[in-house]
Amino acid sequence: MMPNSTADLNAPPRVDIDAHHRLMEEVSAFGGSAGGALTRLTLSEEDRQARDWLATWMKNAGLRVEIDAIGNMFGFLEWAGPDAPRIMTGSHIDSQPNGGRFDGSYGVVAACSAIEAIQRKVAETGITPKSNFILVNWTNEEGARFQPSLLGSGVNSGEHTLEFALGRKDGKGISVREALTSIGYAGTAERVIPDALIELHIEGGPFLEKAGKRFAAVDRFWGATKYRVAFIGRQAHTGPTPMAERRDALLAAAYLIADIRVIADEGGLDLHTSVGRLEVSPNSPNVVPGEAVLFIELRSPDPDLLASAEEKMKAAMQKAAERAMAEFEVRSIDRRKAGRLDADLYKLAEATAAALGEETMRLDSIAGHDSIAMAPVTKALVINVPSVGGVIHHPTEFTTLEDRAFGVQVLTGMLWRFCVDGDVLA
Amino acid sequence: MMPNSTADLNAPPRVDIDAHHRLMEEVSAFGGSAGGALTRLTLSEEDRQARDWLATWMKNAGLRVEIDAIGNMFGFLEWAGPDAPRIMTGSHIDSQPNGGRFDGSYGVVAACSAIEAIQRKVAETGITPKSNFILVNWTNEEGARFQPSLLGSGVNSGEHTLEFALGRKDGKGISVREALTSIGYAGTAERVIPDALIELHIEGGPFLEKAGKRFAAVDRFWGATKYRVAFIGRQAHTGPTPMAERRDALLAAAYLIADIRVIADEGGLDLHTSVGRLEVSPNSPNVVPGEAVLFIELRSPDPDLLASAEEKMKAAMQKAAERAMAEFEVRSIDRRKAGRLDADLYKLAEATAAALGEETMRLDSIAGHDSIAMAPVTKALVINVPSVGGVIHHPTEFTTLEDRAFGVQVLTGMLWRFCVDGDVLA
Repeated sequence: MMPNSTADLNAPPRVDIDAHHRLMEEVSAFGGSAGGALTRLTLSEEDRQARDWLATWMKNAGLRVEIDAIGNMFGFLEWAGPDAPRIMTGSHIDSQPNGGRFDGSYGVVAACSAIEAIQRKVAETGITPKSNFILVNWTNEEGARFQPSLLGSGVNSGEHTLEFALGRKDGKGISVREALTSIGYAGTAERVIPDALIELHIEGGPFLEKAGKRFAAVDRFWGATKYRVAFIGRQAHTGPTPMAERRDALLAAAYLIADIRVIADEGGLDLHTSVGRLEVSPNSPNVVPGEAVLFIELRSPDPDLLASAEEKMKAAMQKAAERAMAEFEVRSIDRRKAGRLDADLYKLAEATAAALGEETMRLDSIAGHDSIAMAPVTKALVINVPSVGGVIHHPTEFTTLEDRAFGVQVLTGMLWRFCVDGDVLA
Repeated sequence: MMPNSTADLNAPPRVDIDAHHRLMEEVSAFGGSAGGALTRLTLSEEDRQARDWLATWMKNAGLRVEIDAIGNMFGFLEWAGPDAPRIMTGSHIDSQPNGGRFDGSYGVVAACSAIEAIQRKVAETGITPKSNFILVNWTNEEGARFQPSLLGSGVNSGEHTLEFALGRKDGKGISVREALTSIGYAGTAERVIPDALIELHIEGGPFLEKAGKRFAAVDRFWGATKYRVAFIGRQAHTGPTPMAERRDALLAAAYLIADIRVIADEGGLDLHTSVGRLEVSPNSPNVVPGEAVLFIELRSPDPDLLASAEEKMKAAMQKAAERAMAEFEVRSIDRRKAGRLDADLYKLAEATAAALGEETMRLDSIAGHDSIAMAPVTKALVINVPSVGGVIHHPTEFTTLEDRAFGVQVLTGMLWRFCVDGDVLA
């Protein structure tokens, strides 16, 4: 059998799953603890360690490492000449506080494994690659330490100005600019707009598992409207202050939190609402709270439903403030429009999975992803493997090694098509 | 006119109000900032500075300074022999976060001013004092950094064991024991049970001002039941997690906060309720909260009303957890019984104020006070001057210099009676 036959060339490279598993274990050490919990807030010391580890891996793999001004890390594999398509893959290695190991990190490590497999097969077969590749790690996908989320990809796509992004501050008043400098990741690279972008991620919900399937591609992404709202009451002693004179900011917040849940119940399955963060001030057991700041999210694939939920929420804010005799102010609004990811990349994912014997489930992405932030400026796709129990943002987040292997194999297969055939989307 | 006539002896010493005002300004520097805000959390660096300042004042005034194992500071003026009554006065110099300058500090500085006036008149008249005096600064009255409040007086009264108190931890996990050692205020003095205890404090409510009066003494104190309750939900992504599967700890907290306000509304004027502190975990904008810890207070002068409010609250907890599909656990319960302060001290306050031309308003103390914690083991009284607008625990907390002067003058007059006549309550 000829080693360089066409059939052999077209078959995707075999991924070294043992090596992939070892890389996942290595990166999980940075901010990880017993029981699977991972706390690797963006631009923290743990993030710096994981970034250094990734930069070392990329250099050892022969990639040219560049950092841009918002700290996004790029690893360039430019072996196909300056006119060849540039195909990007990767995700993020920051995490939620007390989050899980797979959200984001799996996509970055999968990108490493796919590129390693492709490099190996190119070396073995001696073919000439027809695409360049870029491995990416985006800054602050999570939005846990700094808001908004998807900050690095949002700067790269042009949605946010660099100045806006660098000025965001965490709960302690530290800016993104200061945090980047302190960990040594304030770089100078220019914006990178690839010809295609593929991100492998664990599913952030239970639908694959419920359907008994192991692979999905994201067709449609939900829009999101995120409000930061402050209720302002009046600090007073919780003892002697007459109840009728209290202006309790936390009570107003409680009314609104309850009403925001009602808005979801009225909206049906296509509306998700939440209040994930609440900052109470002064937050002392015997002081009537003078301020309560809520971080509210409304999400829907339907722009009209999202808009009507926002109107309901604004009315609920007013009502909550009046009931608690507090004032309120909207401190910030972030909006992400609903939309669709690239149909041709979707077909490529479907064909690649089918060749490996699996049907592709069509999923909505309700969560944001960096590839969604990049969708306005490039052809982008998110592909998913199941998370056991649909768990995400929790220490018990887990994807079986078999499913992880399958995801990396599909990603590798998709990238291989670009490597062998150049711009397969053209 | 004879300088040592009986009439002259009975007249209370004149307080040096300019000196009193200067002392208030001095102590306000430790943790104070523009606009009247004061943040002097117990056993903090600011508290250490204020304690050092107070110790210096006491030593300069000839008092013997002792510190006990919970950090309570005592200044002994033992000029009447070992068998004479020991009369204690003072308050606390810790504050709420972003609190005011007068809560507590006024009572400590007033004690300094009263003792200075008495020492001066004793020197001028040459009389033999018939009572010893003890100036006190209690540790952690506020309960802002460590719970429960009234911790130092509670140890001294025997309500809490020293071991319990030293083991209390703040939000960062630092124990009272560690904090005392770090600021150098872990002493060795024994418990001090005086024969009488008088505490001057700004009123923690609007009643004096509303009645157009300038002086009150506390007859009755309210009981308090304080719960720390945790709702436990399940951390999950606020995006993809289906609404029907969310177990949102903050939503449960919101339901309970709203219901606790309803309990107050149903209870009438003799029931106060509050949730002043709420700790949300992980408190990230796009994570469904996995835990929410509430610090709840119920207060009433009526034990039956307090007990029925507690039963309603327990039912509300259960209901809130069920509605949000969360669990809950009660992490701690503190109870303070309603009761009465010393009637003879009350009469002495009334007579002293009347001699100075003011009627005494009879007030409930709804807030806790160290003298209330000490009431089971000594004759204790709290006396009040108005706070403008009834404000307390807020940077705009303010008592006019005239009212402050009047309060110190009454305190001085009461102490002077003990000085001249010995145990006037016997």
